[in-house]
Amino acid sequence: MSLTKLYQHLEKIYHLNSISSLLSWDQETYMPEKAYAHRAKQMGVIAGLVHYYKTVELREILKDIPIHELHETDRLIVQKIQYDLEKWLKIPEKLAVEITEVSSQAQYHWDKAKKNNDFPLFAPYLSKLVSLKIEEANCLGYEDCPYDALLDHYENGLKSSDFERIIKPVVQQLYQKQSYEKPQHNPFHQFIPVAEQLAFANQFIQDLGFDFTRGRQDLSSHPFSNAISVHDVRITTRIHENDLQYMLYSTIHETGHALYELGLNDTLLGTPFSEPCSLTIHESQSRFWENNIGRSLPFCKFLARKLEEYLPKYFHNVNPYELFEVLNFVKPSLIRTESDEVTYHLHIALRFELEKALINQEISVQDLPALWNEKVSNYLGITPPNDTFGVLQDVHWSAGLFGYFPTYSLGSFYAAQIYLHLQSLFPDFDEQTEKGNFGFIHQWLKENIYSKGRLYFSHEILEQATGKPLEANAFLNYISSKITWV
Amino acid sequence: MSLTKLYQHLEKIYHLNSISSLLSWDQETYMPEKAYAHRAKQMGVIAGLVHYYKTVELREILKDIPIHELHETDRLIVQKIQYDLEKWLKIPEKLAVEITEVSSQAQYHWDKAKKNNDFPLFAPYLSKLVSLKIEEANCLGYEDCPYDALLDHYENGLKSSDFERIIKPVVQQLYQKQSYEKPQHNPFHQFIPVAEQLAFANQFIQDLGFDFTRGRQDLSSHPFSNAISVHDVRITTRIHENDLQYMLYSTIHETGHALYELGLNDTLLGTPFSEPCSLTIHESQSRFWENNIGRSLPFCKFLARKLEEYLPKYFHNVNPYELFEVLNFVKPSLIRTESDEVTYHLHIALRFELEKALINQEISVQDLPALWNEKVSNYLGITPPNDTFGVLQDVHWSAGLFGYFPTYSLGSFYAAQIYLHLQSLFPDFDEQTEKGNFGFIHQWLKENIYSKGRLYFSHEILEQATGKPLEANAFLNYISSKITWV
Repeated sequence: MSLTKLYQHLEKIYHLNSISSLLSWDQETYMPEKAYAHRAKQMGVIAGLVHYYKTVELREILKDIPIHELHETDRLIVQKIQYDLEKWLKIPEKLAVEITEVSSQAQYHWDKAKKNNDFPLFAPYLSKLVSLKIEEANCLGYEDCPYDALLDHYENGLKSSDFERIIKPVVQQLYQKQSYEKPQHNPFHQFIPVAEQLAFANQFIQDLGFDFTRGRQDLSSHPFSNAISVHDVRITTRIHENDLQYMLYSTIHETGHALYELGLNDTLLGTPFSEPCSLTIHESQSRFWENNIGRSLPFCKFLARKLEEYLPKYFHNVNPYELFEVLNFVKPSLIRTESDEVTYHLHIALRFELEKALINQEISVQDLPALWNEKVSNYLGITPPNDTFGVLQDVHWSAGLFGYFPTYSLGSFYAAQIYLHLQSLFPDFDEQTEKGNFGFIHQWLKENIYSKGRLYFSHEILEQATGKPLEANAFLNYISSKITWV
Repeated sequence: MSLTKLYQHLEKIYHLNSISSLLSWDQETYMPEKAYAHRAKQMGVIAGLVHYYKTVELREILKDIPIHELHETDRLIVQKIQYDLEKWLKIPEKLAVEITEVSSQAQYHWDKAKKNNDFPLFAPYLSKLVSLKIEEANCLGYEDCPYDALLDHYENGLKSSDFERIIKPVVQQLYQKQSYEKPQHNPFHQFIPVAEQLAFANQFIQDLGFDFTRGRQDLSSHPFSNAISVHDVRITTRIHENDLQYMLYSTIHETGHALYELGLNDTLLGTPFSEPCSLTIHESQSRFWENNIGRSLPFCKFLARKLEEYLPKYFHNVNPYELFEVLNFVKPSLIRTESDEVTYHLHIALRFELEKALINQEISVQDLPALWNEKVSNYLGITPPNDTFGVLQDVHWSAGLFGYFPTYSLGSFYAAQIYLHLQSLFPDFDEQTEKGNFGFIHQWLKENIYSKGRLYFSHEILEQATGKPLEANAFLNYISSKITWV
């Protein structure tokens, strides 16, 4: 009875969070410009309610739960919820509401600033947000540094020192592996109007398994995936009319996120049974489809056929080897979301260093543009022409997502390990990919990743799924085999 | 201090209602199909919260307000709120939530039923909704019949007998005035693709005063205007590629609604100071732009120029007299929103009679299709080929809006009186309309209608604005002058 009450309570929070997701999706897609101030208020009202329900009210309800009498799944759920509650109780409602409201305003001003290359327009909102997130880190507590408290939101228990230990060495090795052999011909480089690109993308992601009765795709300033509910997962993309790849690979990335959300358990909503595990697992899914599958030669053969089928005006006799070459060409570039699989992690490293320094109060928001450009120059050997192509490119900081970036690298390592495991598990993996038969992959992911919800830690799910703990070498092996090919 | 608390509380309710509007807008425009069940839950959660805030909590806050010490506007606001509170307290939270959830589900099934001419699919949801609305009417109480309790939502104090007294005689007179002289040539009848029609509409409504930084226009199954907040008012339309009028005049109608919402006071949000007065005033604004302005000869001259300017591929040397003839051609038709200004009110009369009989439990939902067709045949002399063109055509019942329809007729009478008043007030009214100079109309409406909020009753606003109480003859005079022309 008290368990029923708990689950009903969590479902109510789930619906409120769904609403918050819709408010956010709308803000990034269709909201009229001058609605932004009220949108921040709307999000604040929901944030306040959610905070109250998941602290004060939840604590009362949890008191009556006889945890030692519960069956396994229920016990795992209640344990996670208790862990969450302790964390949530540390954050005052006022702070939670303020972070939500300022994030909403900051995103609006970031978008404007990005469009007009106007960092100073965005800076005051970012400063405010950084100081609120520092306050949050202090409320949460930490061992080594405030930034670690925020990292924990996206990957439970992850510390800056883990990033330095696991990811940095890989990044350093990758740094040696840059290849500059530019492909002779890029089939993606031709004029295709926005509407035709979007129509193509909408057909293509259905082939990957995206279900339009439970989701949709729109345009936005920065591509994202937003799970409004388990039956309403929306992704966005953006389009360059002279480069189909720009849209396509960001769309595939977001489709990977969406497939995860659409594949979660659809009972016990609002509990860890039906929630995504972590951002690391989330990014492992998006990066898996974008890179491990999406940039493989068998996939290029499949893609070549689909380009000819869906865009016959623009594609005939597509050479899949040319696609493969273009998609795996390693060259430092300015924009993270467009970068190749190798230099991508240099982008992550520089963001990690900057946001860590910001939250640990070693640098200030004013220092960001110059430090950004300096790091891009050091790591990638190129210089952003302006802040739009530099510090303003990503949505994350404006949304208050400090500590998110490392999960892209970690997720990529997870993805590589999952990919190599699947390759060994299914001898005809490449053959099926070439045919566009992804059903067996969906099924395996559903059983081994999606259905686990948030009942286990990321590393537990990885180990259960692949039989091994995380091996960063898996990623290096995977990437080396490709780079050699180029 | 207690007044500040009241206003803050009402503003919180305002933001929650805004969220509810967005959920509803999204459901009708972009929501993926299978999201509908969760959408109903989301709407239910908000409805429950709003109900609690505007009953239990509001009652507590109002106790501390020294009403006799307040200045005029504050006193008017508090008096209205006290009146509302008494009404709201009569409805149990459970019922409010259930009506919201069932409406959301009913709308989904109505849309499907309409598309597939499948009334039985919709019938169980409508039956459920009707019984919930009867329950609501019984909670609210009434003098003559349950239906009157619902009429009051849309026009305070309106009774069925008023409709019979004011509107029916006009309808009967109109019934004699049907004209069947079909225009020789209809310039709207040509193929214009959806995208071009929408682009034209978006340009054209800006000329009427619609501000795209504070609103937008999308496509939906049934056109509507939805004020998410005072700075975020969204309208929708629908398109026939072979008849521009079908889209255009519904768009102008919704623009009229939107101009009202966008022109409301933007302080003291959530109080009657910044709320629309009633559905009657609302419909007076939409019908004013759609008909009194929109079907006038000077407007046709303006429209002719704009068609040539914005759609040069399709329009040149447009004859405004031809437009006028087409727009004022009186002929019974099946669809209310496409009907002329005369037979329109026969559509309203039949809906009034049916919904009154439903709520007063004189007929059942199963009887509706046959009764609908019978009345259409009696009043209009034509027969719907199926339910899609009959009982399924309007969204209102699926949204639980029983008692709304009479305000269309009443609003039209208000609009005619306002129009004739403006004609006498501004001798160059027609000249300015022809030029597309609507600024003086906006200003007059702002001062005399919009800015009054909900501090007065509809009839008080009309009388203050035009110097006269409602005269149904104004509408008859207005319409007769036009029909004679045909």
